[in-house]
Amino acid sequence: MCTAATYKTKDFYFGRTLDYEFSYGDEITVAPRKFPFEFRHMGKRNSHYAIIGMAHVAGGYPLYYDAINEKGVGMAGLNFVGNAVYQAVEAGRDNVAQFEFIPWILGQCADLDEVRALLDRMNLVGTPFSEQLPSAQLHWIIADRNAAITVECMADGMHIHENPVGVLTNNPPFETQMFLLNNYQGLSPKQPENTFAEQLQLQSYSRGMGALGLPGDLSSASRFAKVAFTKMNSKSGDSEAESISQFFHILGSVDQQRGCCEVADGKYEITLYTSCCNADKGIYYYTTYDNHQITGVDMYHCDLDGSELFRYPLVQGEQIHWMN
Amino acid sequence: MCTAATYKTKDFYFGRTLDYEFSYGDEITVAPRKFPFEFRHMGKRNSHYAIIGMAHVAGGYPLYYDAINEKGVGMAGLNFVGNAVYQAVEAGRDNVAQFEFIPWILGQCADLDEVRALLDRMNLVGTPFSEQLPSAQLHWIIADRNAAITVECMADGMHIHENPVGVLTNNPPFETQMFLLNNYQGLSPKQPENTFAEQLQLQSYSRGMGALGLPGDLSSASRFAKVAFTKMNSKSGDSEAESISQFFHILGSVDQQRGCCEVADGKYEITLYTSCCNADKGIYYYTTYDNHQITGVDMYHCDLDGSELFRYPLVQGEQIHWMN
Amino acid sequence: MCTAATYKTKDFYFGRTLDYEFSYGDEITVAPRKFPFEFRHMGKRNSHYAIIGMAHVAGGYPLYYDAINEKGVGMAGLNFVGNAVYQAVEAGRDNVAQFEFIPWILGQCADLDEVRALLDRMNLVGTPFSEQLPSAQLHWIIADRNAAITVECMADGMHIHENPVGVLTNNPPFETQMFLLNNYQGLSPKQPENTFAEQLQLQSYSRGMGALGLPGDLSSASRFAKVAFTKMNSKSGDSEAESISQFFHILGSVDQQRGCCEVADGKYEITLYTSCCNADKGIYYYTTYDNHQITGVDMYHCDLDGSELFRYPLVQGEQIHWMN
Amino acid sequence: MCTAATYKTKDFYFGRTLDYEFSYGDEITVAPRKFPFEFRHMGKRNSHYAIIGMAHVAGGYPLYYDAINEKGVGMAGLNFVGNAVYQAVEAGRDNVAQFEFIPWILGQCADLDEVRALLDRMNLVGTPFSEQLPSAQLHWIIADRNAAITVECMADGMHIHENPVGVLTNNPPFETQMFLLNNYQGLSPKQPENTFAEQLQLQSYSRGMGALGLPGDLSSASRFAKVAFTKMNSKSGDSEAESISQFFHILGSVDQQRGCCEVADGKYEITLYTSCCNADKGIYYYTTYDNHQITGVDMYHCDLDGSELFRYPLVQGEQIHWMN
Repeated sequence: MCTAATYKTKDFYFGRTLDYEFSYGDEITVAPRKFPFEFRHMGKRNSHYAIIGMAHVAGGYPLYYDAINEKGVGMAGLNFVGNAVYQAVEAGRDNVAQFEFIPWILGQCADLDEVRALLDRMNLVGTPFSEQLPSAQLHWIIADRNAAITVECMADGMHIHENPVGVLTNNPPFETQMFLLNNYQGLSPKQPENTFAEQLQLQSYSRGMGALGLPGDLSSASRFAKVAFTKMNSKSGDSEAESISQFFHILGSVDQQRGCCEVADGKYEITLYTSCCNADKGIYYYTTYDNHQITGVDMYHCDLDGSELFRYPLVQGEQIHWMN
Repeated sequence: MCTAATYKTKDFYFGRTLDYEFSYGDEITVAPRKFPFEFRHMGKRNSHYAIIGMAHVAGGYPLYYDAINEKGVGMAGLNFVGNAVYQAVEAGRDNVAQFEFIPWILGQCADLDEVRALLDRMNLVGTPFSEQLPSAQLHWIIADRNAAITVECMADGMHIHENPVGVLTNNPPFETQMFLLNNYQGLSPKQPENTFAEQLQLQSYSRGMGALGLPGDLSSASRFAKVAFTKMNSKSGDSEAESISQFFHILGSVDQQRGCCEVADGKYEITLYTSCCNADKGIYYYTTYDNHQITGVDMYHCDLDGSELFRYPLVQGEQIHWMN
Repeated sequence: MCTAATYKTKDFYFGRTLDYEFSYGDEITVAPRKFPFEFRHMGKRNSHYAIIGMAHVAGGYPLYYDAINEKGVGMAGLNFVGNAVYQAVEAGRDNVAQFEFIPWILGQCADLDEVRALLDRMNLVGTPFSEQLPSAQLHWIIADRNAAITVECMADGMHIHENPVGVLTNNPPFETQMFLLNNYQGLSPKQPENTFAEQLQLQSYSRGMGALGLPGDLSSASRFAKVAFTKMNSKSGDSEAESISQFFHILGSVDQQRGCCEVADGKYEITLYTSCCNADKGIYYYTTYDNHQITGVDMYHCDLDGSELFRYPLVQGEQIHWMN
Repeated sequence: MCTAATYKTKDFYFGRTLDYEFSYGDEITVAPRKFPFEFRHMGKRNSHYAIIGMAHVAGGYPLYYDAINEKGVGMAGLNFVGNAVYQAVEAGRDNVAQFEFIPWILGQCADLDEVRALLDRMNLVGTPFSEQLPSAQLHWIIADRNAAITVECMADGMHIHENPVGVLTNNPPFETQMFLLNNYQGLSPKQPENTFAEQLQLQSYSRGMGALGLPGDLSSASRFAKVAFTKMNSKSGDSEAESISQFFHILGSVDQQRGCCEVADGKYEITLYTSCCNADKGIYYYTTYDNHQITGVDMYHCDLDGSELFRYPLVQGEQIHWMN
């Protein structure tokens, strides 16, 4: 389905994979500060923080999948099918439709404390965008350079979980995902020591045996463990180039290859795109399944005081550099 | 350590990852037909099939890690530490030093039948390239568009194994790697059915659960299983772009991220480069750890009747395409 | 820690293992109908259903670990350390101390419907038995021949879960245990079919490969999966001998061997005893770690209309039958 | 299929499970010193060490599955289907039929050195016992109190492997079984430490989590790992009662429950019997699937200087000790 991760070197990075069997047609979309956001239950906002992210733009409205704002807050929605249950519209609360959640938060919050304050008085409601686009069943990761949280609306209400690992995938709910990491606690990037039986001469016949037991299938719980291990043990320089390279390697560890996850006869879920935002610099980097080159969009190259969306259709084909 | 794989759509593709904690300094190297190969025990060859591959060029000699020839045969050497034992020089046999093995085979063989014939009268010997470069402990995958074999020299002699999966990693020996695939036979890209207990209502709460049990650590046996599953189930169009995209996804499934495989204090094995050769068209594509863009070198853009090596140092830094 | 299971052939069987590093001194204990149960918050009961079970008798009071009553209801308490949080005493509710829970239920309920009704108006409270015996952190399985439930008191209140698998171990909470069974749904007592890659000749080189992936360690989640698989796939004749033999094999699948679970330096958790009650016939069978022979106590051989406990200390040493 | 194990406290213990879907009719059988063994290719032996073991006695001949001799050497044959290839009869060698292997060795050898010497000049041949009883495909464990070996006849000849773990199951061949133990080297009876990610608060939510990853299915490679872990970490007192109790717990860890290994429609492999020999005292203890009590036969209660077999049919039904 999808995987999101944070990463911090000198700057703060935030990104995700979007895994699905087809694309709705997505564009890197910059919503400058004066782009008017009309909220279904909360009125119009003519002024807000600028946002850059991946969106399906429908009727001029950016339905963001993931984005960062100019203050360095990142947010992504990931599939949570079968578990997401939105709240009812309730007077006296901030009633925000699921599809408005990203602009609502990123438009107003400069850090995670402000996010928490906003969530405190908010109901996340299921008001659909349109008849053609009913509300998606999602949960969210929201992060700044200091911390991350996960927001899940379920049958028993809204849950806001601290997310110390800075990772989100899909089902099961986040608390279970975190719980399951306990089972992997003995794994390590170092070679194992023989604690099975001292009397036996056991050997590490290959490098990398310390993480034996780490799952490699594409189910969401396995991707959670794999990407958590990869991210938590990642080492890289802190330059921009080294940081984003490492980030794409982290999410590459849970890349979904065409053919390995059949969701219907002859239909295969793949990693449609992988993103990596430098949340400090306002840059959105991405690759697509069929374009391994990293493409970048810099929000500060747009007029952030404008009121019109800036839209950048994805570069889709393989961009090969020829040396001869 | 390393992973090699074959893939066939309309054309035949052959490539590998090279995983290590540092690079010897590698270059895409074309040995045209008249480049003189001086074999330690077999004399000089002034005429042979043209070869393109990744090599460390030492004193003008291309020490190939992997390569294809103009006839569509591919060959790669992968670490086999602790198991490789080379043969003794023996009169009346073709005595080929380990570091000469790739040019010896690719220089003369137009298909796998010719490879088998050559292997039949060959001893693979441990004669070192130089004092500074003692013989590496390797085993090899050799493939054409129809089949693949694995060559392993061990204490009990040379083994030539059919390689029906078209994949090679490192230890343990190939027969054990293939044997272990039996343990994964029930895995599938499709969702599992409940055969645990019909009376229970079990559910597939996530996509991709049919391959639960597939390993995700970086040890060589786990990479063998993971890449075999990914390759054997791969689906792609058969255009050049779709084929090489899929190929890089296949090898990407066993990418080694910096930090996840610590080989000595603070030293980490990573995927230094990933290659994908179109063996039919004579093109060598690659990415490096810090350059996600695919770079290509076309052997037919070199004068293949020449006698001098063509050398292309790797493009190393992240090549980002900026959209604004 | 512990494992409980139900099993039904012609009769209904209910039992458990008690795994710990030492014994408090346990006895098969029959509480006949007129044995006076003095409840801390609910007064004295001079008449109730007769109960047979394993208990530590303290000051004349049977602290039952597991028991059945003469109506065929079984109940066992298992460790739930770190998760059990008892309720507060509340006026207008049936306030039952944790250590009284088994006699409270088994003394009054002839089937699971009556258990549910009783639970409905009950608070499970932490009132300790004595200063020396503070309240244990437990959860419970309660079953009759038709169904089973699990009762867990946690920080967010009392949970009553349907238990379709008829199995209980320890942490994590029951809902997570059941959820994790989804991961094993593709396991089977039959040999696997090759869905990994049709083009490969994979083989079942051993019998029993259909359940590859079933865990064999002694952690409570692994025991839950192992015993669930064993129980749900169990086949036996329905005679008393065949039924109890199979039952002891089911619980034997999660036997804890001395040395395999070190809980403190040189201290090992073992399966102190394993029980199997014929809930229809009122018989308590058991084995101990050091006595493989099954020992039986028949409640109907006691005067069930009495008012004094009948106590049977465990036969502890290995009872070997000599043939010559 | 089957599992064999050795165990040493004060005395030396040797035993096995025999797992199959039906029994040939087995008896504890003592062959006293003068019981005439007529070897097919080696003539008659009228004097030899006394042997006690489990045998199917056919036409007065004890076809031993496992046995010990009066010198403390134990030997058991276990299924090795698909891999066993016996040798050809060869002049100048000791040609021993597969079904004679146990009496040949145990009749003559007082320790493992003598066994090795005998094996040195021996061919293990496929001469069948009779038309009705063709030669079984087996491999063997032979042990004295100091060491154990495994004997496997395969297409490439006879292999004699040191068996440092003192365990044997079935396929794959022994070297592969031992190799696979390397994958489990990080498992431990102690709780794991968090080496996954220091920054995360991971917890051991259950006892016994140090051995997570230990397999629990009934395939022969999984039983090898499970019983090796159990045996190598076993702790017990060294009295006879404590030792044999622990031994039955060791083999109980790989007990095959009826229903969990379906070998044909409605046919299930089960642990028909489990044996434990005190090789120092000449006692054969056993349990059967439907009799949990340990039964013992003491060879020294037979006239070991006799020439007739002593035969003890198995006690099969559940022997329940009633306390009231």
